[in-house]
Amino acid sequence: VRNYTSEGEVVSLACFTGKAYFIVKHEWKGYVMKINEIGEFGLIDRLKKDVLIRKYEGLIGIGDDCAVIKTTFGRYTLLTTDMLIEGVHFNREYMKPDEIGYKAMAVNLSDIAACGGIPKDALISLGVAEDVTVEYLEEIYRGIKESAEEFLVNIIGGDTTRSSSELIINVVIIGEVEDKPILRSGAKENDLICVTGYLGDSAAGMHLLTNNVLDPDDFSAIINKHLRPYPYVTVGRKIARLGTAHAMIDISDGLIADLKHVCKASRVGADIYTEKLPFSDSFEIYCEKYELDLLQMSLSGGEDYCLLLTLAESDYQLLKAELEAEHSKLFEIGRIVNGDEIRLLDGDGKEIDVDVRGWDHFGEIPQC
Amino acid sequence: VRNYTSEGEVVSLACFTGKAYFIVKHEWKGYVMKINEIGEFGLIDRLKKDVLIRKYEGLIGIGDDCAVIKTTFGRYTLLTTDMLIEGVHFNREYMKPDEIGYKAMAVNLSDIAACGGIPKDALISLGVAEDVTVEYLEEIYRGIKESAEEFLVNIIGGDTTRSSSELIINVVIIGEVEDKPILRSGAKENDLICVTGYLGDSAAGMHLLTNNVLDPDDFSAIINKHLRPYPYVTVGRKIARLGTAHAMIDISDGLIADLKHVCKASRVGADIYTEKLPFSDSFEIYCEKYELDLLQMSLSGGEDYCLLLTLAESDYQLLKAELEAEHSKLFEIGRIVNGDEIRLLDGDGKEIDVDVRGWDHFGEIPQC
Repeated sequence: VRNYTSEGEVVSLACFTGKAYFIVKHEWKGYVMKINEIGEFGLIDRLKKDVLIRKYEGLIGIGDDCAVIKTTFGRYTLLTTDMLIEGVHFNREYMKPDEIGYKAMAVNLSDIAACGGIPKDALISLGVAEDVTVEYLEEIYRGIKESAEEFLVNIIGGDTTRSSSELIINVVIIGEVEDKPILRSGAKENDLICVTGYLGDSAAGMHLLTNNVLDPDDFSAIINKHLRPYPYVTVGRKIARLGTAHAMIDISDGLIADLKHVCKASRVGADIYTEKLPFSDSFEIYCEKYELDLLQMSLSGGEDYCLLLTLAESDYQLLKAELEAEHSKLFEIGRIVNGDEIRLLDGDGKEIDVDVRGWDHFGEIPQC
Repeated sequence: VRNYTSEGEVVSLACFTGKAYFIVKHEWKGYVMKINEIGEFGLIDRLKKDVLIRKYEGLIGIGDDCAVIKTTFGRYTLLTTDMLIEGVHFNREYMKPDEIGYKAMAVNLSDIAACGGIPKDALISLGVAEDVTVEYLEEIYRGIKESAEEFLVNIIGGDTTRSSSELIINVVIIGEVEDKPILRSGAKENDLICVTGYLGDSAAGMHLLTNNVLDPDDFSAIINKHLRPYPYVTVGRKIARLGTAHAMIDISDGLIADLKHVCKASRVGADIYTEKLPFSDSFEIYCEKYELDLLQMSLSGGEDYCLLLTLAESDYQLLKAELEAEHSKLFEIGRIVNGDEIRLLDGDGKEIDVDVRGWDHFGEIPQC
């Protein structure tokens, strides 16, 4: 029994065994709840009901950066997928095809990194718009293979099909982790909140590419951060092996939006010390030049693809030293607290108010 | 060094470390090889070069229905993915949303069936056009879950994002097989060629939905075959357990196109006995009514999603009996021969000529 009202022009009525069956030239006019009323994450909450048919111990994470399945041999398989659609996630006007391919891999590798995993295999689905040439696709694949080579990933399959108008890339990465994977849900009260890279660069890079592409200054650093994001796979592995991080996520939707995922999954709140947020020189210069709100850009810009993690204060110095020994960074930016709120505190510990929106694919496009 | 010529309006020149970097408002004007010049499979051949970074024993199949990885424990993991794009693979006008979801699962399950595998887990990526409501997506998911429940598949993750105009569904299914997976490459000279279901129904169903939707007769059987294809997972398992099939594939692109894949992978030719091709009553009546070429429809229509397999003549009766005991069918339709050609033979053994085109997403749309 259908639990919705489907309106539309009924053009034919055929009789299936035992029941009437309407062939409807559908225009779907059931209910009219727009997705942006509930947002991407509200939508996911609704869709993911009853998706587990077989209940089994092995499945640890659903709704984390990766799905995590415990194999019978004490290892964990990680699975992650991200779909990139032209006009939403990238633009053929300001991205070269190899950059599109490289980025499609990078955003997925970043999810493996967030679980402390080792990427292994990839599946690539391509939906190809009519005006795309063979050479253009080969260039996309060159970017994909470049990333695959860098992280020792085998491309073992996929699908290639025609698309009506947009270029679409869906990447799946299968990885594994021998240590316990680091989930979003492990943050504990009093944990320090840390990030492994600068914030806001990618957002500023996108701002430049879409608004100020004629700027004569050298902002290649922030442009590059947007066009060729670097997945923190090696850093994620290091953090997993040391075993001191309680929770981890990659910053794709924006610092606050992703911190919210951690807080929700861990049932905690968080204080962010805005004076401690790490910014690159290029980012600061760019924001100053175009009078952009540095804080807003860095908190809600998204696509930083560095890692956010929480750990006990007593473990911070060791992790920082270990990462710095390998020329990686660790910045303390806040603290996990009791409650369910995220507060932004200035240098004097006073709460400040910033209009923060994380990237929600169905919400309004963040201003950045 | 870039190995292509990128033309377009150069709007900015920024200096990256050590090299000039052009920000180009790209209109890609490199070379101009259209994809339909080399077709979907020519394209895949070009793209899949050098995709294996780590050489390892475990990987058995690439370019088969599934990627097949031998785990260290004598089992095989199967991975398959298919992307369905509105306007190419389905149409919101004549498909209900739950049918779209069900079919997206079915076409992937069919690939698992073709390897004789057991489906286990699924990842679902949705690209959602602006005009799609929450309830519509829930209906798509109802169809997905219906199929998942039927075949005991857990949906363990995915991605949901905005799309500029089309509705896009990418499904990944992870499966396994304890027995040796059945690949395309095992067909041997003198093998019988068999199929597990009627041919042409789905193509006729699509023809009706796009041309004769007002037809007053009851063609629900062929419509249903197009809208809700049934993946032959149980039959595929049975065939794998008996262990007599040498090669197997699911018929998605059309009998001849998929048989070609088998012949190419196995380095053999094939004779098809056109008089033995199995047709449903509805299909024959429909083709007669609309004066459609029965043979052309059944050979190149595609989307049958039954299995095509080859096995020794001596094993045929047993497999047929075993399948019939479970109310499944097996039809002998031809024979594997030496060479690399596919010939169509009539009842007198005379070669006949039919304009056969399999479904190639970048070729011309097959006439059906």
